[in-house]
Amino acid sequence: MNPKPNIVNLPVYKPGKPIEEVKRELGLSEVIKLASNENPYGSAPSVRAAIIAELDNLSLYPDGSATELTSKLASQLGVTNDNIIFGCGSDEIIALITRAFFLPGDETIMADQTFSVYKSNADIEGAITIEVPLAHGTHDLDAMLARITDRTKIIWICNPNNPTGTIVPEEALITFLNAVPSHVMVVLDEAYCEYVTDLSYSDGIKLLEHYPNLVVLRTFSKIYGLAALRIGYGVASPQIITLINQVREPFNTTRISQVAALAALDDQEYVQECRRLNSAGIIQLQGEFERLGLEYFPAHGNFIMVDVRKSAIEVFDSLLRKGIIVRAGHRIYPTFIRVTVGSVEQNNAFVTALEQALTEQKVRA
Amino acid sequence: MNPKPNIVNLPVYKPGKPIEEVKRELGLSEVIKLASNENPYGSAPSVRAAIIAELDNLSLYPDGSATELTSKLASQLGVTNDNIIFGCGSDEIIALITRAFFLPGDETIMADQTFSVYKSNADIEGAITIEVPLAHGTHDLDAMLARITDRTKIIWICNPNNPTGTIVPEEALITFLNAVPSHVMVVLDEAYCEYVTDLSYSDGIKLLEHYPNLVVLRTFSKIYGLAALRIGYGVASPQIITLINQVREPFNTTRISQVAALAALDDQEYVQECRRLNSAGIIQLQGEFERLGLEYFPAHGNFIMVDVRKSAIEVFDSLLRKGIIVRAGHRIYPTFIRVTVGSVEQNNAFVTALEQALTEQKVRA
Repeated sequence: MNPKPNIVNLPVYKPGKPIEEVKRELGLSEVIKLASNENPYGSAPSVRAAIIAELDNLSLYPDGSATELTSKLASQLGVTNDNIIFGCGSDEIIALITRAFFLPGDETIMADQTFSVYKSNADIEGAITIEVPLAHGTHDLDAMLARITDRTKIIWICNPNNPTGTIVPEEALITFLNAVPSHVMVVLDEAYCEYVTDLSYSDGIKLLEHYPNLVVLRTFSKIYGLAALRIGYGVASPQIITLINQVREPFNTTRISQVAALAALDDQEYVQECRRLNSAGIIQLQGEFERLGLEYFPAHGNFIMVDVRKSAIEVFDSLLRKGIIVRAGHRIYPTFIRVTVGSVEQNNAFVTALEQALTEQKVRA
Repeated sequence: MNPKPNIVNLPVYKPGKPIEEVKRELGLSEVIKLASNENPYGSAPSVRAAIIAELDNLSLYPDGSATELTSKLASQLGVTNDNIIFGCGSDEIIALITRAFFLPGDETIMADQTFSVYKSNADIEGAITIEVPLAHGTHDLDAMLARITDRTKIIWICNPNNPTGTIVPEEALITFLNAVPSHVMVVLDEAYCEYVTDLSYSDGIKLLEHYPNLVVLRTFSKIYGLAALRIGYGVASPQIITLINQVREPFNTTRISQVAALAALDDQEYVQECRRLNSAGIIQLQGEFERLGLEYFPAHGNFIMVDVRKSAIEVFDSLLRKGIIVRAGHRIYPTFIRVTVGSVEQNNAFVTALEQALTEQKVRA
């Protein structure tokens, strides 16, 4: 009954602390969670009605191929149904790609640091992860290219990068893709793409026709506000999608998630409004950080990575006691916290708490 | 960009045809689906309200550990929280077990034939599947024991067995478990256990304390009527659960699925009523099969495998044209169809259509 030796000592993913747990543990009546890059405005109002209309069908299996959702999305993206696969969040697509493609000893290249799920899945499959340090919080594409060998199977580019929030501009991305040998798959994780307003940003979907080794990942968990429902997708050549489908369980997304995503796609005005509010929130927070003399990485998603110039873990704890949950514990950024861009009120509450936390830390030090 | 060689030619899972698709293709206004062993009575009424109450939280990630649901289930089952893992249906638990435990070349033993997801996942991991013919539609435990070697890692027992519906009685199961060496994991898939009324049937959960190599799988997709929501679970020793958790994605069940399962667990009267109606439906269908001179396997789940004594595929097609969807295409049972036990009205409609189909086939022959 021995497991795969490589899974035994994997680190366990630590999610942002749930609001209820923090309330309970610290006896707080109000808690603001800015830890998981959730949409502070929720999802489009039409989603609710779409879900309620589906409640008579709870006993029926979902359409395993998500036909209707796939067709609508394909039409919006300008691709065909055969280019799309849905998963239980884009997390599952990452897991499926690794399960379909990695053999033990394969090499995979990613930034240090980036979304942890790439490495955890590579570890499960016995692939060898090569982590290439970020340069100023941004993917160092030349350094990543320099690490490609005959054994390289997948390169992961998180754009915007989680946790730093930086982007790879289109020109640099194209130069990179032109240099990657065809035996190497490039997974471009665009979970936060709908938030980006920078004109230099690429739309990965448009690159697909030129790069048959490219896979683009997206999700309904962020700007669409459906994190609760676990639905994301991958877009790639039909050949790659077919291979990923070979390791997908037949019913991997729920009926409710499918109808919710369908309704969410229909309300692009809501997406625009969330993007606008998020951009305003970035400006608000950046202004406050500048006032406090704190440096931060250029933010293109719905979160900002800011250098609090002290132990981030201590600042995290101090914020937590004031009812604000953020993220800390980033191995190579021990003085940075990652904060989700909230509503104006949430951002204000965060900044007030942060100022207090920084003062406390000064007094203690 | 080569995938794992063993995934390329895997057969693709063929789900039961969706009702809408059949209506569209055949121009039918009414279609009855008795193909996927779904609960014809839906889910408990309280589930609906529980879901609606959760609709304000769609933008928030689920509790990845499903803490509240785990606690309630643990208390109902008389186990601890550490004994339980939830998945996107028990399908996902099967996939996770194989991903955590199989190394290429490991051997795994299962019935021929049984639930196809065991083999498809073993294939993905490069394990060698040893299929042991059923005896009279029932697991042949002695023959399975005889195939154990030093390389055997997992034995799968589907109880009741899908697609035959037969059970392994408790005494035989205990004799078998006593004979299985401790290096071999036994996965006891009890997806249909809540339907069983036969007193010789075992409750796998009660066996867990005696067999640390045992894993029990259950689901909310069958008697609980929540197939749409993809939620199932595994129960085993904390050591095994910890190892399966190592390969689980952090957020693998939705918020909606968790609150729905919680409400469903609370309504055990509904479960009892569904079991009672199902038992009556089995008696109804068995009576009709006897009237028609058709043999069937003893049915313990919510489906019956009946020998129509002609090409099952042709009978399937004929039933489909009359608006009744069943299952056929079982490799070693080419003259059997598997039909879900429906409501009295659905069963009547099925029997009427079946009689017509069998007559047609006679006339043509």
